[in-house]
Amino acid sequence: MELLYEGKAKKVYRSEVPGQLIMEFKDDATAFNGQKRGQIADKGSVNAQMTARIFQWLMEKDIPTHLIRRLDDRHLLVRQLTMIGLEVVVRNGVAGSLSQRTGLPEGTAIDQPVLELYYKNDALGDPLINDDHVRLLHLASPQELAAIRRQAMQINEWLRPFFQERGILLVDFKLEFGWFEGQLMLGDEISPDTCRLWDSQTRERLDKDRFRRDLGGVEEAYQEILKRVMT
Amino acid sequence: MELLYEGKAKKVYRSEVPGQLIMEFKDDATAFNGQKRGQIADKGSVNAQMTARIFQWLMEKDIPTHLIRRLDDRHLLVRQLTMIGLEVVVRNGVAGSLSQRTGLPEGTAIDQPVLELYYKNDALGDPLINDDHVRLLHLASPQELAAIRRQAMQINEWLRPFFQERGILLVDFKLEFGWFEGQLMLGDEISPDTCRLWDSQTRERLDKDRFRRDLGGVEEAYQEILKRVMT
Ligand SMILES: Nc1ncnc2c1ncn2[C@@H]1O[C@H](COP(=O)(O)OP(=O)(O)O)[C@@H](O)[C@H]1O
Ligand SMILES: Nc1ncnc2c1ncn2[C@@H]1O[C@H](COP(=O)(O)OP(=O)(O)O)[C@@H](O)[C@H]1O
Ligand SMILES: [Mg+2]
Ligand SMILES: [Mg+2]
Repeated sequence: MELLYEGKAKKVYRSEVPGQLIMEFKDDATAFNGQKRGQIADKGSVNAQMTARIFQWLMEKDIPTHLIRRLDDRHLLVRQLTMIGLEVVVRNGVAGSLSQRTGLPEGTAIDQPVLELYYKNDALGDPLINDDHVRLLHLASPQELAAIRRQAMQINEWLRPFFQERGILLVDFKLEFGWFEGQLMLGDEISPDTCRLWDSQTRERLDKDRFRRDLGGVEEAYQEILKRVMT
Repeated sequence: MELLYEGKAKKVYRSEVPGQLIMEFKDDATAFNGQKRGQIADKGSVNAQMTARIFQWLMEKDIPTHLIRRLDDRHLLVRQLTMIGLEVVVRNGVAGSLSQRTGLPEGTAIDQPVLELYYKNDALGDPLINDDHVRLLHLASPQELAAIRRQAMQINEWLRPFFQERGILLVDFKLEFGWFEGQLMLGDEISPDTCRLWDSQTRERLDKDRFRRDLGGVEEAYQEILKRVMT
C-alpha cells in the first residue's frame, strides 16, 4: 500500500479503488501541538473501532461521513475527501483552552453549545480564528461555513444523548470536514483523542486529558470508553 | 479630582458633573500585555489631541462618541459609559498578530475588512474570542454585538478616507464601546497607540509599532501623525 500521509495519530494509505483511502490508527499520542509525545497501548485499535461505530451510527441519522467500512482493528476504509483546513470544536461545558481563554472554571455548564473554529496548521499551532479569518484564508465561503456550523451543531445534538445513555458527559469534541463530489462530509475520527468525555456520575476524565495531564490510567480509560460505546 | 482608575495609558478622574469623567493621557507606553514598558515624550498630549480631533469629526458624521470636549493638551471631558469588555479590532491590511495567526505576510492587502473581538482582560492577556464566547461571557447580546460590529465597520468607512487624504494608510485599529442611557457610544481613544498607521508612499510605520519593535523615531512619528491629523 502506498503511504500518502503520516500524521500525528494516523497513517493514510491509497487503496486499490480510486477515491478511497485506508486510515491506519496509531498508538502514538501527542499533546500541546506535538511538544509532548508518548504511546498509549491499543489506542489505535480503540480509536478505529470507536470512530467506525460512531460514524456508522451518525450515518443512520443521515449525517454524511467518509466511512465506507472498518477493515480490521486498526484500519478504516474511507472516501477520500478534499479536506477543509479547519478544526471545528463544539463545547457543552467549559474545559481546557476555553477555561484558559475565558477564565471560567473547568466544569462550568454551558446552556447553548459554544462552537469554535481553529485553523488546522501545525506550524502556526492551530490558532483560534473567526469567520472573517476563514474568508481571508479562503478556507470556506460564508455559505459553506454556515453549512459546516449547522452540521457540527446537528452532530452534537445526536452525540450528546448517545453518550449520556452510556453514562458519559460529552464535554467537547473536535470535528474535521471535507468535500466529496460537492457534498459536505464528516471526515477524520471521533475518539477519546478528539473528545472530552467525563463519567456522568464521578466526573472522572475518560479521554486524552489523562495523557495530557499525567493522570494515569490512560489505557484503562480508553478501554472503558470503547466498552460503553460498543454497547 | 478623585482618581477613579489608572490604566496603562490614561488616568480617569471623576468630574464635578455626575456622569462625566476627565481622562488624562499619560506618556507611559506599554506593549505585549505590559511586559515591555517605557515612556514616549509628549505621547499623552498627541493622543489626547488626536482623539479629540477624530472623535469630533466622527460625531459630525453622526457616530455617537463619549467626547464632550477637550479641556487642555492632556485632558478630555467625556461621558461616563458602562464599558463593554471588548476590544474591537478592524483591519484593512495584515499586520502584527493577524500575520502570526494566519501566516500571511505583513502588508498583505485585505479586500473586505476583517473584524476581531478580544476579551478585554489583562489577566488573561486580552485573548481573541468569537461570538459564542461573547454570549458565554455575557459581554453583549447577539443584537448588541451586531450593533457593535455595524458601528465599527461604519467608523472604518469614515476613517479610511480621512487618513488616506492625509497620506496615511489605516492598516488596523482598536475600538472600545460602552453604553450611555441605552445608546451605544464609542469610548476610549483613537491614537497611534491604538492604530497601525503607515505612510502611504514610504510605508513607514508611524505608530506604536516603532516602540514595540524598537525602530527608533517614536516621538517623531507621533508628532508627524498629529500634524497630519490636525490639518
Ligand atoms: N477522508 C479523508 N480524506 C482525506 N484526508 C483525510 C480524511 N480524513 C482525515 N483526513 C486527514 O488525514 C490526516 C489524518 O491523520 P492525523 O494523524 O490525524 O493527522 P494530523 O496530525 O495532521 O491531524 C489529517 O490531516 C486529516 O485531516
Ligand atoms: N467614557 C468612558 N467611560 C468609562 N470608562 C472608560 C471610558 N472610556 C474609556 N474608558 C475606560 O477607561 C480606561 C482607560 O484607561 P487605559 O489606560 O486605556 O486603561 P487600560 O490599561 O485598562 O486599557 C479603560 O479601561 C477604558 O475601557
Ligand atoms: Mg489529526
Ligand atoms: Mg487602554
